[in-house]
Amino acid sequence: MSKKKSQEGDFDFSSSTRRGAPNISRRKFLAATTAGAALAASPAAIGAEKKAHYQWDSETDVLVVGTGAAGSCAALFAHRTGVAVSIVEKAAFYGGTTIKSQGAYWIPNNSLMRERGLIDAKRDALLYMARLSFPTLYNPDQAELGLPRADYQLLETFYDHGARVLDELAEMEALQSTFFKSGDGSDFPDYYSHLEENKAPIGRILLAVSREGVPGMGGELMGQLQKAVNDRNIPVLFNQRASKLLQYEDGSVAGLEITATDGNVKNIRTRKGVVFGSGGFIHNEDMRRNYLRGPVYGGCTMPAAEGDFVSIGSAAGAKLGNMNNAWWAQILFEQAVENSAVPMNVFVPPGDSMVLVNRYGKRYVNEKFVYNERSQSHFHWDPLRAEYPNLLSFMIYDQQVAKHNAGIWPIPELEATSSTSYVISGDTLEALHKAIAARLETLAAHSGGFSLDPQFADTLGGTIERFNGFAKAGDDLDFHRGEVASELFFHGFYTAPGHRNEHPNPTMQPLAKQGPYYAIILAAGVLDTKGGPRINTHAQVLDNFDQPIPGLYGAGNCIASPAGQAYWSAGGTIAPAMVFGALAGEHVSKL
Amino acid sequence: MSKKKSQEGDFDFSSSTRRGAPNISRRKFLAATTAGAALAASPAAIGAEKKAHYQWDSETDVLVVGTGAAGSCAALFAHRTGVAVSIVEKAAFYGGTTIKSQGAYWIPNNSLMRERGLIDAKRDALLYMARLSFPTLYNPDQAELGLPRADYQLLETFYDHGARVLDELAEMEALQSTFFKSGDGSDFPDYYSHLEENKAPIGRILLAVSREGVPGMGGELMGQLQKAVNDRNIPVLFNQRASKLLQYEDGSVAGLEITATDGNVKNIRTRKGVVFGSGGFIHNEDMRRNYLRGPVYGGCTMPAAEGDFVSIGSAAGAKLGNMNNAWWAQILFEQAVENSAVPMNVFVPPGDSMVLVNRYGKRYVNEKFVYNERSQSHFHWDPLRAEYPNLLSFMIYDQQVAKHNAGIWPIPELEATSSTSYVISGDTLEALHKAIAARLETLAAHSGGFSLDPQFADTLGGTIERFNGFAKAGDDLDFHRGEVASELFFHGFYTAPGHRNEHPNPTMQPLAKQGPYYAIILAAGVLDTKGGPRINTHAQVLDNFDQPIPGLYGAGNCIASPAGQAYWSAGGTIAPAMVFGALAGEHVSKL
Repeated sequence: MSKKKSQEGDFDFSSSTRRGAPNISRRKFLAATTAGAALAASPAAIGAEKKAHYQWDSETDVLVVGTGAAGSCAALFAHRTGVAVSIVEKAAFYGGTTIKSQGAYWIPNNSLMRERGLIDAKRDALLYMARLSFPTLYNPDQAELGLPRADYQLLETFYDHGARVLDELAEMEALQSTFFKSGDGSDFPDYYSHLEENKAPIGRILLAVSREGVPGMGGELMGQLQKAVNDRNIPVLFNQRASKLLQYEDGSVAGLEITATDGNVKNIRTRKGVVFGSGGFIHNEDMRRNYLRGPVYGGCTMPAAEGDFVSIGSAAGAKLGNMNNAWWAQILFEQAVENSAVPMNVFVPPGDSMVLVNRYGKRYVNEKFVYNERSQSHFHWDPLRAEYPNLLSFMIYDQQVAKHNAGIWPIPELEATSSTSYVISGDTLEALHKAIAARLETLAAHSGGFSLDPQFADTLGGTIERFNGFAKAGDDLDFHRGEVASELFFHGFYTAPGHRNEHPNPTMQPLAKQGPYYAIILAAGVLDTKGGPRINTHAQVLDNFDQPIPGLYGAGNCIASPAGQAYWSAGGTIAPAMVFGALAGEHVSKL
Repeated sequence: MSKKKSQEGDFDFSSSTRRGAPNISRRKFLAATTAGAALAASPAAIGAEKKAHYQWDSETDVLVVGTGAAGSCAALFAHRTGVAVSIVEKAAFYGGTTIKSQGAYWIPNNSLMRERGLIDAKRDALLYMARLSFPTLYNPDQAELGLPRADYQLLETFYDHGARVLDELAEMEALQSTFFKSGDGSDFPDYYSHLEENKAPIGRILLAVSREGVPGMGGELMGQLQKAVNDRNIPVLFNQRASKLLQYEDGSVAGLEITATDGNVKNIRTRKGVVFGSGGFIHNEDMRRNYLRGPVYGGCTMPAAEGDFVSIGSAAGAKLGNMNNAWWAQILFEQAVENSAVPMNVFVPPGDSMVLVNRYGKRYVNEKFVYNERSQSHFHWDPLRAEYPNLLSFMIYDQQVAKHNAGIWPIPELEATSSTSYVISGDTLEALHKAIAARLETLAAHSGGFSLDPQFADTLGGTIERFNGFAKAGDDLDFHRGEVASELFFHGFYTAPGHRNEHPNPTMQPLAKQGPYYAIILAAGVLDTKGGPRINTHAQVLDNFDQPIPGLYGAGNCIASPAGQAYWSAGGTIAPAMVFGALAGEHVSKL
């Protein structure tokens, strides 16, 4: 058993052969016969003692699970207090889902905003967040905005500590930030800059910036954070899954059992605690079907996101929350049925002469609006027909889009159009109808037999005619496409430079009268889920009695997101992961 | 401590003062430091022993929690094997939510059908159930219909045992059944009799019938089951909440801690096991917000349905399922904000010159279609506006409906119209608009400030004009109102006898050109939720490794319903509760 301690964490597996089941104390163990939740609720009352005679393979002060934004910030903020920190990562590489992401982080009232003279008052920021996160509870006339106190306090904590955490990351030389701007220098507006509650529509969205001054995406963000972790010699053990929380008699955390890719199991003792930053549950088919709001097929989340903390946390007595919500996205159905971990989501369907239609050939959503919101339209349930008419939808576009948006996901390079299997084509709408129908037949086992309405081609013809009229006039009377600032920003971001259509609304152009026409099958997916064990303002995991489970912390997509149902704006995912990860690291170090 | 045993169960609280924390074994308790789930998964592997030195206040073989359809059937089927059975009930009276219900039970291929020559083949019944329960997985070409095996087997078990359980209840003189018919003798068709998968559209829906041959509702059903329980001297202890599952070292069930209304706590030892039939979680505001598919305000469920088994089962290591679904219903918003336990749901909005409209004054659903399906339309999310436009909706009707449907819920007796606070009225549509707007203001704190669109009255005028045209022609081109058999049955059921309108579609009549007009505010609610711990085909509760937790059983609304997202037809709620309750009672007795 390792007795060594060091500031840099102290993994030592020199004596690490698995010695079978741990040798447990013979003392009075109430936990065996009471619920874990109840146990953790009142350790003092039951006179439990901090004993657990496991056989340990190594030990550290703070063990962090996961290397995304949440885990990295937890490790860095714990480490700088002087305690020993180690990290375990289920994947073979650093960065979690964050490294695949756009890499934005949304920090209200950040110091870059203040330096620029942008005002983002606390009450205003909270009004915006609460309005979107809890729309059916929101009440601007109440001090806590109509929210349950615990939810309000999490939002408040995010505001109060976000700017500080970012400043301290900069001071620690762990992360340099800049504004998210487009190529022409204009600021990325908040997704809901058009809501009256948004008093600071620009400036909250930040990106990591290199020493050379070049803003980057998730790779830049995680590259900087990983370097900071490495600079501090914080050990990172890869290919290790958190498999069981090891608890003392009073329910507090003793350590963590981890299982390597090769099946080797080890017990790591934690003198202070464990911080989970391990991602959501989208790649657990069973969980996504039993918890989420609607039918979802996968996500661009790292494959490691299999809901480990939902199971581990529940078993430790944690109370689950926000299980119905996710960071919704649209994904390519044909990729998702191959592997729920798809390479990429469709942030915004590229192109102007392009529409999304359902099985009836009808538009059902503003194609250019924010992915998180747009994707929920797949969940619409038709009561009478007992079907999800938008379960799968079809991104229909013409040759102009195939050309002008070539290479912009998911539209292939022009010369690859015919060789890209997920692109279905037809010279006429009737031919396209037949081709889609044939493709759907091959996919029936994955979709509940989802098929096109027999009148699909005819209806689609009418849909295009109506859309073309809107495009000429510039006004989408049905779905208001292109009316919101974030749509225009996104549309520009995902359009080839220099391409301008001649119509009044840059997001709409009439589809050509002549084929070929193309279709790509879309389905609902996620960036990741955002339900799991609940935390308090210190990122401590709560039990079913709303009491912290001593030594257990969480942040990021593995916990019940403080954001509720909302996606405040670009970076609304990563910023709370960073902030509550940092708070977890700070608090666990004080134990 | 009670040592007495008897066939009739053996509650004995003569020595029942609370003696503080139980005196727990000092043996090697693995459970203290491993997840309950893992423990239960492999008790043999860890060499645990069946010991737990609790102080018991009484003991029985089988303890049943709840007195609705599930609990009653569990108790009856356990008792007839010869074991001692006792029941605890949280409420002060017998019958659970079942007693408040319509009392139908939907049993495929029941013997009454067979006697009448109605065919309901196993494969056909399973196709219908699978198609509705798991629409995105359904695949009629596969042996198990595209469902996960565990889900398929639960449906199969329901078919295989449903008719037998019913026959045996009749043999036991516990329940006499008859077909559900309307006053004119026509059969109540299945909700989805119009689907091609439905090969037995009539005959599955049954009701309890009195000795005098009078079919009854939930009161008749529970009256018969309660009498059967009483005839067998099965003790029922009221005002007792299940508060904690007491487990042996190996995770198997030792007994149950119950807490009385007065706070008195007792431990009941169970020599065989505990069967939960304790209802869902709709009256737990926190759970309904964190698990359900959309914003829901309450239900006509008994107030006792506070999700106890979600917490107790989770703490015991159970795997949760179907947490996002419920038996959806429409309820009166103003009642729900007073108390989430509303007296009644709106099975179908009565009347022909009546429409449901959203905050824009637009129809959004077929008003006469099945409550379970119709109610989900409240969940529609408008991405661009970041709002639920149908969160609250308005049942708008004229004086004809106020008169002809007087006394049919929720329409008050004619003379009570003006004194019924939840009925809002106006002499013109503009006046109605103003009155609704004023009412909504008083409710803003409960609805996230839900308000009418400024053009509500104008749009409503157009909506009514369009509806009136449909009514005259008999065809609802927008929502197909009145086209399905179950709609016509329901409409007839909830219409005053003798009232016939002169238009081709009995469910539609033009609204009057002149006021007064009335509005009632509706919201989404439930009969009850249907998520919770998962069971296997013996109604054993499963842990996170899909292994049974020995001695723990569940049926009814407290467990993950085998029905998935579906409401197969009238009685689709109660029938599985009865059947899996019975199976639980049979299986636990064999332990």
